[in-house]
Order: sequence, then structure tokens, then C-alpha cells
Amino acid sequence: MKSIQASSYPIHFQELGYKSLETILAQNTYSSLFILVDENTMEYCYPKFMANLHTDLPIEVIEIEAGEIHKNLETCMGVWSALTELNADRHSVLITLGGGVITDLGGFVAATYKRGIDFINVPTTLLSMVDASVGGKTGVDLGVLKNQIGLFANPQMVLVDPEYLETVTAREIRSGTAEIIKYGITYDQNLYQQIKKNNKLNITKLIHKSIEIKNEVVLQDPKEKHLRKILNFGHTIGHAVESYFLESQEKENLTHGEAIAIGMVCETYISSVLFDFPKSELQEFKEMILSIYGKIPIDTREYSAIMDLLKHDKKNNGGQVNFVLLNDIEKYEIDCKVPEDLIIASLNYYRS
Amino acid sequence: MKSIQASSYPIHFQELGYKSLETILAQNTYSSLFILVDENTMEYCYPKFMANLHTDLPIEVIEIEAGEIHKNLETCMGVWSALTELNADRHSVLITLGGGVITDLGGFVAATYKRGIDFINVPTTLLSMVDASVGGKTGVDLGVLKNQIGLFANPQMVLVDPEYLETVTAREIRSGTAEIIKYGITYDQNLYQQIKKNNKLNITKLIHKSIEIKNEVVLQDPKEKHLRKILNFGHTIGHAVESYFLESQEKENLTHGEAIAIGMVCETYISSVLFDFPKSELQEFKEMILSIYGKIPIDTREYSAIMDLLKHDKKNNGGQVNFVLLNDIEKYEIDCKVPEDLIIASLNYYRS
Repeated sequence: MKSIQASSYPIHFQELGYKSLETILAQNTYSSLFILVDENTMEYCYPKFMANLHTDLPIEVIEIEAGEIHKNLETCMGVWSALTELNADRHSVLITLGGGVITDLGGFVAATYKRGIDFINVPTTLLSMVDASVGGKTGVDLGVLKNQIGLFANPQMVLVDPEYLETVTAREIRSGTAEIIKYGITYDQNLYQQIKKNNKLNITKLIHKSIEIKNEVVLQDPKEKHLRKILNFGHTIGHAVESYFLESQEKENLTHGEAIAIGMVCETYISSVLFDFPKSELQEFKEMILSIYGKIPIDTREYSAIMDLLKHDKKNNGGQVNFVLLNDIEKYEIDCKVPEDLIIASLNYYRS
Repeated sequence: MKSIQASSYPIHFQELGYKSLETILAQNTYSSLFILVDENTMEYCYPKFMANLHTDLPIEVIEIEAGEIHKNLETCMGVWSALTELNADRHSVLITLGGGVITDLGGFVAATYKRGIDFINVPTTLLSMVDASVGGKTGVDLGVLKNQIGLFANPQMVLVDPEYLETVTAREIRSGTAEIIKYGITYDQNLYQQIKKNNKLNITKLIHKSIEIKNEVVLQDPKEKHLRKILNFGHTIGHAVESYFLESQEKENLTHGEAIAIGMVCETYISSVLFDFPKSELQEFKEMILSIYGKIPIDTREYSAIMDLLKHDKKNNGGQVNFVLLNDIEKYEIDCKVPEDLIIASLNYYRS
């Protein structure tokens, strides 16, 4: 697969990725190398990664607990303390080996340790390959509020090796698929139609195409002032639903993609009411989403908690919730205000 | 006083400062204004500040506990949570009103809240006027390790009003004076001689000169790759001594300046051994420091704990402690290695 050049760093694939990593580690005058993993990537990805890593640097591994629930400041403090105890200095480099929690949290920890050390992302889940490891967003959750604390910081490189996907569950693959669907519906008609027609697509090509799209969007608008907002499609309602399930004692957590899939159905419905998104396409879109993710049970009594979480969305401005909506596939409208009863109606549409 | 232009933001003084603040708040489309204070600046500085603040923005005040011991991630979490509860959004702006703890911590909190909101520094102590509020360093301590977590982030402007110094103690003024002495000995012979000869200097002029020097240094080397390292003179041993007093149960904490004054005496001594720093000047320098700060009691039994803390200094590289030393006043050498027994000898020299 051809490498992709992001703003200040390259995204390399497979064998070339490992070769480039070797070069970067050899060319920089790093003092030591740290690898951030969770218990899953330690068991399933670390052996393969180490077999492909060639460096003379001293290596230390830092392991955190897996799961979105650990993507918080307490975990950061554990990693900062571990780096300190293991004598990481300003010339150390951190490799993040894992899913979105590892790449988001690891990037944040690296960018703020002694005012910033280099880091390299090696995403091991579909979601982190197509989304989390590209675009410079790093951060952690504050309570149930997703990515409330963080900053923009770029890695030195990203290494994408789809072979790591053999280590993850089918549910995780579906989670990442939601972001690929988002790239299609907001930005690439062809990609969208491919996914709609056929579920047996070449995953490596899908990943490459997704990263190309995300990179194209981010290069044009790194700080999310205009175009990059399209990447939030489905995420306004989706994040609120995700946070709601995360904070609920009774409900099993949703994956990010499951929540975003619900958000995309709701926001496509709102698009069909406020803009011209075709009703027939809306219906087919909902059917496709339900065929992949099933229908997640949400009760009307849960709406008010979800609405409360919406009010804390990072994209809000002066108390107003900001949406990205669609006139059609590929035709987006940013900074849309949506009345509360229409948000409720969109949740009803999802449930209907 | 004439305004000073830093890399991306202005430093305004006195009346012009308040006028410029009014303009900045009016010209940007901020949604709301937050003011970070501690209990001291709330009581002594906030009334004067509010009397001079003219804005139509909704204002909320967030108060934290005063003191270096609260410059940590727990306090950050309190401020991030308060911002969240008070519905701060990406278009909110944070004004830090206080000493180095408030400006360093406030800048870090702002730069990482929802991936970064604008902030404006209003330093109220001599130390924060001449050092902490200029140069883009933000951060908090991790345990006793000073500024271990942080990042480079610039404010929108800095407002310096020396009238706030009427609210602080003589001990705090002495603390800030140490940084002014540092600017003199490392970078400005004239300034150094003025301080040596006369303690009755115009404080506003001293502040202005100090900020000019710091700004000149930072503009040439924002990320501390070479020249900016001179600002660490006295800070290698000084930070270790400061951390040691901070973590000790028995000892009263030192101010930053008191610790840095000890560090400067030690590092000038080392300079006279390893380089050509004149012995007579060394002796006069030590006398001046002792006349301002007295002699802080340090016992030989405490050396090993101080040496341990030195090993965690942010400036270290591959386990080596990095010093800035002097051939003479204004004549610096960066990235110097110093044998451990010479560091011990320098502490003995301070105590002798």
C-alpha cells in the first residue's frame, strides 16, 4: 500500500511501515523507547510487533487496563509516573500499540510529559486505524464526557498493519466500520455505494481509502474551523448516546461505532426534515445500519439524560448544540442548529 | 511603559493593558469569560481587576487553593470540572489572575480543555510578572517534580500591572528578585551591576527590562534547544532543593526564588571550578545573595535526597544531568556535565 503524507508526518503501511520505523528510530537521537500497551495488545499484538521491531534503543513496556472506562486522567497519572520512574527524558520516544484508547491517551501523555516527547502510533483496531491515529487529536475523557481534556499533537509517524485486525473481535470490526460509512456518506459517494452493495470488501483497501479521506479533510482544516466538522457527522447524538451507556449502571457499554451508527441514523433523519436528504435513501441507510448493528434498545425515559449530555458536547457554542447535516450524500451543511423536539423525533425514528 | 511584542501575543502594561484587554474581549467572538484566582488574589487583586475590566461577557470566577503544593493534576481536575459545570465552551476565554501557580496551571488547563481555549495572563506577583507569564511554558507538578506535566502554549495577551505587587509579601518580592538577578548574571552585565550596587531600583523598570530580556531569549529559541537554556541557570540545583523542601515533612517550604538563589550560588561556584568564572566575583555574588535571602540551613545528611531529585530534572538526557554554567557574567556555556562530587562541593561552598 502506498504511503500517505499527513501535515508533518507519514502514514506507512505493512512492511514499509516497519522499515520506516527502524529508520526513524535510528536517525533520531532518542535516549530510550517506551511502548504503551493494554493487556490485550500486550498478549496479541506485542509479540508480532517486537518480531518486526529492529532497534538498539533500550525498551520499556508500560501496560494499562483495556477499555474506554480507563481513558481518563487517573490512567494518565499512572503512565506519567511510570515514565518518570523508568527515567524517560525529553529525548525518549513513546510508541502507542493499541486501539483508540491507547493512541488517544498515549498521544496526550507524550505531548504533555516534560512539555512533550515524540510519539509514534501503531493502531491495532479498525477504529484506530481509520480514525483515531490520524488527525492529531489526542485526549482523555472527563467523567463520561468524551475527549474533554486533550490537545492537538502530531505523531512522528503512523504505522498501519491490517494484520493486527486478526486479533480483534467481529464487534470491534463493526465499530470501525461505522467511521468508514461516515467517510462515505459525508464525502465519497463511491465509497458509500460500495459499502451499501457489498459487505465483502478488501479491508486493507478500505482502510487506505478512509485514511486518504480523513487526511484530505484534516489537511484542509486541521483545527476544525469548517470542513473538518463533517467528521463529526453522527457524533453529536452518537457521543451523547455513548456517554449515556457508559455512565449507566444497568446498560452494557456500546462500542464507539455502535453509538455513532445510531447517531448517523438520527442525524440523517434530521437532515431529511431540515434539508433535502432523500427520504428513500434515509430508509435504505437505516436498514443498512440495522443489518450491521441490530437495533440497540433505547427507552423514551432515557431521552432526558441523553439530551443533558448533548448540552456538554465540545462542538457547542454559547449553549447551542451544533450539528453537521446532509442535503444528500457528499453534500454537507455545518453549524446547524436543531430544535430539541426534532432531536427527540430523530431518536423515535431510530426506534421505529 | 512601552508594550513588548512576544512571538504571537503582546505584553501590555498598566492602563494600556486594561484598554487592550477590553479591545481583545470585544473583538473576539467569545461566548463567556472565566477568571481563575486563588483565595489570596480573590481577596486582594480581584476587586482592583474587576474595577478595571470592561466587558459585556458573562463572567464566572473559579477559585483554587493558593500554594505550590496545589499546583497538581488534582487541582486541574477541579478546574476542568468547574469549567464543564459552568458550561465553558470552545469559545470561552480564561483569564489567570495570580502568581506562577495560577498562570502555569491556568495556561495548562486552558490549553487542554476541549483541546484548547484562549487564555490571558494577569500576573500579580513579581515572580510571575518577570518569569512565569511570559515564554509559553505551562504545566503542573507531578508529586514533587516541578512542571513535569505541561506543554508550550501562548496566551492571547499578558497584562502586567505592578500595582498588584502592593498586595504581596516582602518574601514574595525577594522570590521574584532571584529571577531578575538571573537575567543580569547570564545575559545583561548592566542590569547585574545595577542590582549589585543598589537595592532601591524602580521596580516597574526592572520588570520591564526583565520581560524584555526573557522575550528576546525566547524569541530566538522558543523550544529551548540552545539559547533558552540559559534561563535554567541556578534551576538545576535550585529545583532539586525546592522539591526537597517541598516533600520534606519537617522543613518549611522555600519560595522558588530562595531555592534558585541557592542554586545560583552553587552553579556559580561550579562555574569557577570548571570554567573561568572569577573567584572574586563569585565571593561578591554569594555575599549579595546571602544579604537578600539569608543562609538557608541544609544538612549534609540531606545531600543524597537532593542528588536523587537532580536525577529527575527535565533537562537531563540519557541519565546525565545538564547544567548551564558561566565563564563570566553574560558568558554562558550550555549542556555542561558536572561530576557528582563537584555538585556536593558546591553545596558545601554555599553552606561555608
